[in-house]
Amino acid sequence: MFGNPYYAEKISDALENIQLPESPNNLYEPIHYILSLSGKRIRPQLVFMGASLFGYKDWGKVLPASIAIEYFHNFSLMHDDIMDKAPLRRGKQTVHQKWNENVAILSGDALLVKSYEELSKCPAFAVSELLKTFNRVALEVCEGQQHDMDFELRNDVSESEYINMIRLKTSVLLGGALELGAIIAGANAENRQKLYDFGVNLGIAFQLQDDILDTFGNPETFGKQVGGDIIVNKKTILHILLKKSLSIEDQIEFDKILALSEENAEEKVSRMKILYQKYKIFDLANTLKNGYSSKSLDSLNAIDILEENKQDLVILSNNLLNRNK
Amino acid sequence: MFGNPYYAEKISDALENIQLPESPNNLYEPIHYILSLSGKRIRPQLVFMGASLFGYKDWGKVLPASIAIEYFHNFSLMHDDIMDKAPLRRGKQTVHQKWNENVAILSGDALLVKSYEELSKCPAFAVSELLKTFNRVALEVCEGQQHDMDFELRNDVSESEYINMIRLKTSVLLGGALELGAIIAGANAENRQKLYDFGVNLGIAFQLQDDILDTFGNPETFGKQVGGDIIVNKKTILHILLKKSLSIEDQIEFDKILALSEENAEEKVSRMKILYQKYKIFDLANTLKNGYSSKSLDSLNAIDILEENKQDLVILSNNLLNRNK
Repeated sequence: MFGNPYYAEKISDALENIQLPESPNNLYEPIHYILSLSGKRIRPQLVFMGASLFGYKDWGKVLPASIAIEYFHNFSLMHDDIMDKAPLRRGKQTVHQKWNENVAILSGDALLVKSYEELSKCPAFAVSELLKTFNRVALEVCEGQQHDMDFELRNDVSESEYINMIRLKTSVLLGGALELGAIIAGANAENRQKLYDFGVNLGIAFQLQDDILDTFGNPETFGKQVGGDIIVNKKTILHILLKKSLSIEDQIEFDKILALSEENAEEKVSRMKILYQKYKIFDLANTLKNGYSSKSLDSLNAIDILEENKQDLVILSNNLLNRNK
Repeated sequence: MFGNPYYAEKISDALENIQLPESPNNLYEPIHYILSLSGKRIRPQLVFMGASLFGYKDWGKVLPASIAIEYFHNFSLMHDDIMDKAPLRRGKQTVHQKWNENVAILSGDALLVKSYEELSKCPAFAVSELLKTFNRVALEVCEGQQHDMDFELRNDVSESEYINMIRLKTSVLLGGALELGAIIAGANAENRQKLYDFGVNLGIAFQLQDDILDTFGNPETFGKQVGGDIIVNKKTILHILLKKSLSIEDQIEFDKILALSEENAEEKVSRMKILYQKYKIFDLANTLKNGYSSKSLDSLNAIDILEENKQDLVILSNNLLNRNK
C-alpha cells in the first residue's frame, strides 16, 4: 500500500462497500469496474493528509471529500481514455473498450455527479467552500485535458505552455485534494494556499519526473518499456527542451528520428538519446524538476504548524519523487 | 417568448453576458455555441416560478440556480447528441458535428461543472439542500438516458418501463427546477414535494403529448413532419400501447410495416395509422396523458399557498399541454 496505510484502508473499505443501484446496469457497472482497477489512491489520501496537517482527526467527516476526489479522478480517466482512444488502463480494458463509448460517456457523467453527491455529505459548515474549490479545480482539469489534446496538433508548444498544461491536467487536483482536507480542518486562507501550492508544485515535479524516467529510467525497475515516449513521438518535456536547443543540422537528424516508424523502435530510442545527451537534456529536465520539488517543499515549510504534523507529507513527497530521503 | 417574459428576460440577459475564459477555445466556444441555440428556457424559468410560488421575489438570489439548471440541461443535450449521433439540434449543427466528439465530451463535462459553479453562488443557507436535490435529479437524468439507449435494443419494453424512462430522462429535471426555487424560498418539505410532483407529472404528460402529436398532430401547425416517429420505428408510447394490444394477424401486419424502408414513408405512416385507429391508440394515449396532467394539477392544488400565486404555473401547464383553457 502506498502512503499512509491507515488512510489507505479507510479509503479502500469505503470504495469496496459503495452501494449503487442495480439498474440501469450499463450505467453503474462501469463505475464499479473502474473503481476496482485500484491505483495508488494518492489523491483521496491527500484529503486526509490535508486535514491531519492541521490536527483534524474526525476521519468520518473527512471521508466523503476524499471519496469525492477519487470519484472525480476516475471520471476523468474514463472520459480521457475515450478521447485518447486508450485500450488499456492499469493493464485492464478501458470502459469504452469493454462496453462502448456511449456507456463510458454516460457512466463518466454519473460518476462526476456522484463526486458532488459525496461533497454534499461533507460537514455542513464546509460544503460551500469545498464546492468552490472543487469546481475551480474540476474546471481546470478539463482545461488541462483540452490543452493536452490541442498540443498534439501543434509543433510549437513552449516549455511554459507545457508546464501549464500538466499543472492544469494533473497537479491542481493534488493541490485541490489537500485543500479540501484543510477546509474541513478549518485552516486559515494563508495556510490553505500554501498547502495547495505544495501539492501543485509536487504534482508538476512528479509529472516531469515521469517524463524523465520514461527515457532515462532503470529498465530493471521502471515497469514499462523505457523509451516508450520516444517511440510514439510524445511531446514530453524532454522533447520540448531538446527541440528549442537544436542546431540546424541536428534539427534535420531530429526530424529523421521522428519519422522513423515504431518498427525501428530500438534505433529510434538510441538515436534520440544521443541527441538528448549532446544537449544535456537530462540535466535540464532534472534541474527543472528539482526547482518545482524545492518550491513545493518551501511552501510546506512555510505553513505555520508543528513540524511533526508535516511528516506524512514529507514522506509522501519523497516517495513520489523517488528519493531515498 | 415562452412563459413569464420577466423571468425569460432575466435568464436570457444572464446567458448572453456569461464570461468564459478565452482559452482553451475548444473547451469554451462550444459552451457559448450551445447556449446560443436558445430553446424556450422553460427549465430555468421553473426555478423562478418555484420561488415565486412561495412569495419569494429576490430574483438576484434565484438567478444562479436557474442558470445552473439551464447549464445542466445543455450539458445533457451535448452528450445525448453524441450518443444519439444527432447531426442537428434546433436546426443547427450539434457540437460533436461542428467540432468533434472529443470536444463535445469535454465541453459537456466543463458545462456540468459550471452548473455546480452556479449552485455554489446560491444563498449560503440553501447551498447544501440545493446540491442534494440537484445531484439526485442529475443522476436520475443519466439513468433515464441509459434506459432510453437500452430500450432501443429491446422489443419488450412495457408501458410502465417507458413511463419510468421518460420520467427520469426529462421530467425529474422539471420537478427539480421547481424544487430548487422552493428551497431558495424556504418552502417546507411537504410543499416542496408537492411542487416537485406537479413538475414531474406535467413533464410526463408533456412527453406523452409529444409522442401523440408526432403522429396525430395537425400538419399545418405541427412544425415537423407528422409521422416522423413511425418512419424511424421509434418506440413511442403509441408503439408500445399498440404492440401489446395486437391480434396475431395484426402482429404480422405490424412487423411488415416496421420492415418498410424510409423510402415508403407515406405508405408506412398511413398503414400504421390504420392500426392505431383500429386499436384506439389515440384515445388510450390521450387518456394516459390526461391522467398525468390531472395528477399534476392535483399536486399543485394541494400546495398550501394563495391560489393567485399559482397562476404562472397554471398558465405554463396549459401552454405546455396545448390547452386553450
